[in-house]
Amino acid sequence: MTSNDTICALATATGGAIGIIRVSGPQTFAIVSALCSLRCDAATANTIHYTHITDGKNLIDEVLVSVFRAPHSYTGEDSVEISCHGSSYIINKVLELLVRNGCRMAKPGEYTMRAYLNGKLDLSQAEAVADLIASTNKATHDIAMNQLRGHFSTELATLREQLLKLTSLLELELDFSDHEDLEFANRGELLELSKEIYNHITKLAHSFETGQALKQGIPVAIVGKTNVGKSTLLNALLKDDRAIVSDIHGTTRDTIEDTIDIHGATFRFIDTAGIRQTQDTVEQIGIGRTYAAIDKARIVLWIIDEKPSNEEANELLRRTENKKLIVVRNKSDKTNNNSCNLLNMPLVPISAKYGTGIENLEKAIYEAADIPALTDNDIIVTNARHYDALTRSRDCIQRVIDGLQMQLSGDLLSEDLRQAIDTLSEITGGQITPNEVLGNIFKNFCVGK
Amino acid sequence: MTSNDTICALATATGGAIGIIRVSGPQTFAIVSALCSLRCDAATANTIHYTHITDGKNLIDEVLVSVFRAPHSYTGEDSVEISCHGSSYIINKVLELLVRNGCRMAKPGEYTMRAYLNGKLDLSQAEAVADLIASTNKATHDIAMNQLRGHFSTELATLREQLLKLTSLLELELDFSDHEDLEFANRGELLELSKEIYNHITKLAHSFETGQALKQGIPVAIVGKTNVGKSTLLNALLKDDRAIVSDIHGTTRDTIEDTIDIHGATFRFIDTAGIRQTQDTVEQIGIGRTYAAIDKARIVLWIIDEKPSNEEANELLRRTENKKLIVVRNKSDKTNNNSCNLLNMPLVPISAKYGTGIENLEKAIYEAADIPALTDNDIIVTNARHYDALTRSRDCIQRVIDGLQMQLSGDLLSEDLRQAIDTLSEITGGQITPNEVLGNIFKNFCVGK
Repeated sequence: MTSNDTICALATATGGAIGIIRVSGPQTFAIVSALCSLRCDAATANTIHYTHITDGKNLIDEVLVSVFRAPHSYTGEDSVEISCHGSSYIINKVLELLVRNGCRMAKPGEYTMRAYLNGKLDLSQAEAVADLIASTNKATHDIAMNQLRGHFSTELATLREQLLKLTSLLELELDFSDHEDLEFANRGELLELSKEIYNHITKLAHSFETGQALKQGIPVAIVGKTNVGKSTLLNALLKDDRAIVSDIHGTTRDTIEDTIDIHGATFRFIDTAGIRQTQDTVEQIGIGRTYAAIDKARIVLWIIDEKPSNEEANELLRRTENKKLIVVRNKSDKTNNNSCNLLNMPLVPISAKYGTGIENLEKAIYEAADIPALTDNDIIVTNARHYDALTRSRDCIQRVIDGLQMQLSGDLLSEDLRQAIDTLSEITGGQITPNEVLGNIFKNFCVGK
Repeated sequence: MTSNDTICALATATGGAIGIIRVSGPQTFAIVSALCSLRCDAATANTIHYTHITDGKNLIDEVLVSVFRAPHSYTGEDSVEISCHGSSYIINKVLELLVRNGCRMAKPGEYTMRAYLNGKLDLSQAEAVADLIASTNKATHDIAMNQLRGHFSTELATLREQLLKLTSLLELELDFSDHEDLEFANRGELLELSKEIYNHITKLAHSFETGQALKQGIPVAIVGKTNVGKSTLLNALLKDDRAIVSDIHGTTRDTIEDTIDIHGATFRFIDTAGIRQTQDTVEQIGIGRTYAAIDKARIVLWIIDEKPSNEEANELLRRTENKKLIVVRNKSDKTNNNSCNLLNMPLVPISAKYGTGIENLEKAIYEAADIPALTDNDIIVTNARHYDALTRSRDCIQRVIDGLQMQLSGDLLSEDLRQAIDTLSEITGGQITPNEVLGNIFKNFCVGK
């Protein structure tokens, strides 16, 4: 499948020393050759050429042109990359000349969409490209890279095979249902296989929570009375994080407030500032906002600077039942009483002010996050579209299981099975993907990819 | 001249679909080959290779590696460009791996400095690279491109030849000064030649004012009473400008406040907001801030909405004696009295509110700027270092002229002449350029170029 039109876009961000303009489509070589002295169609594939771009009258830039030939290019089409000086005037001018000579400005993700349409990637791999570009730490990078390398697709293919096996067993039963003397796979076996598939899909769907947390940052609520040192602690954690990245210039992390990378994973600290202090000790832990923060969190840091009352402790334990709770004993420089035994919970002593104990706290936070050690074959679902397809497919399997248990006839079950397979196929794109679905998937990509 | 160490840097801005990492120096091929399966030293020059970067354990990215061989590269050294996904994690990781394998992070402009040291460019051409990257419109682009193409260098070479001719004529006089019967170039001829050179250098030095204006934006003061529509006009001009560039995403122009591109040149509008209104009509035109704005401006837009008094007009004319004054009649929609004859000055009728007349005003502003139509061989000096060298060289020539007129002996003149030549040579770098001078020149470059 090839596109009829030729697209162009800046593939790099503006403001650098160089800018890369990508051109892809059937007219690529003719259009680019019209702007410079290079005969692209005569150039060997995968070679780089020094040439001049002119608008017919004026020299626009001295550039390097890289030539790629279908199908051995990112899109699978004839493609060219123009490496020019990173001036906004030059980049706009070259794009303008390309458009004037027959190119169309590419839509977000259109290069990757063409790669998908030309069979270079399946749909989940194509989506991994956007995740990979957006990845800012090891965890999100590794998940996206696994997905790009097709490990998720392989997993789905295995599932599909199991579902097809189940289908064929049921169809066999249907075809020969009037031969009462023939022996078929017994329903117990079918039920076993169905449950296995159900568990497999459930495991994948469950990984979405982790995937989302890793992608958006694992939510951590810092709670505690005012003046207990919450913001000093946040600054101490931030400083540690910034120090790690400061040697490499230009990461965008500075613009994301209150997210901190710890051991290669992003943690999102939920603001619990503005806790009002009342005479009621329980109330002092925080109300309203704090409880909302706890609800959104996966990990709760409870900062104390003195032994809390049993009332306080019980209230917080009740509120954090399904969370990982870390009790942080701040102002450890002021007292040696770090052994204060609080309902048998381990205590992390720190001094936010002097930055002591921060490393231990980071270790405790990272461990509480319980991030699976990603091996090359671990699958973590990070994409809402995939999660949606997985849960819908699981629902179909659930109906199959119910049907098998209710002794429903095979023809009723096979419809659910087919739907389960089709739903799973949506993830990798299957045979046909409607245009509006594709449009939705690629619209969140950056332009030039 | 080659460097001993191998440098690396991100050559693109962060945040794009792809990032380009440049590696240059003697160990380039060995270092890059250590990170992937590509044998760079065996690769043909100017070819592109698909490969995987790993940290020995994990896959970091699928990349394209472009191989350039000395001396046919930008720096003149063995070089590689790694095109990876634009993730900040991936870019940092690849740079980290390069450094761990023996690269050093490049300093700003270090690639171009190496290109200069390896004789690929002279110093003024190297400086043009930074100007070209910074160019945001046709005027600054064309000047930088002319300089990069060596037109300024050629002009300087011509000047140098003329100076050498003068020197040799003087030296001839010196060598044979005891042969009173020999005829030498007469002093009138030498004076003529000196004045010619002086004028040539003066013309180049004078172009610096234009060059600076084009580079930083031609300063325009908008003056007038409050409520006369100054900010509405500015918005109307801005909107027109933004409309032109809005079709191409991501130009950085938005961050520069109140500079507007008109017909390919940048105009910098000087804020005269906050003019206080007094009972005195002359005072109403504006005081203090307004006069300061006028002093800094090259063009003054005087916005009126009714016929000013003779007193007002005379005051403003006096204040704008050396400026280009454009009288703008706003609120043209409210009155047809656009012919108001003000001291025989042409009037530009506009309605800032309805956007009418803006095109005519832009035309008037552009014409008032008197920007030389740049042909391929026009030289505009934009660099303060060049301007400084030109004026110092001109001072030397002035001394030569004075000496010739005072009948000073040739040996006294030749010292000034030699100094004039040496000073001019500083611009292109001459034979030797001290390290600290080079450091100063390249420190304002972006990293990666």
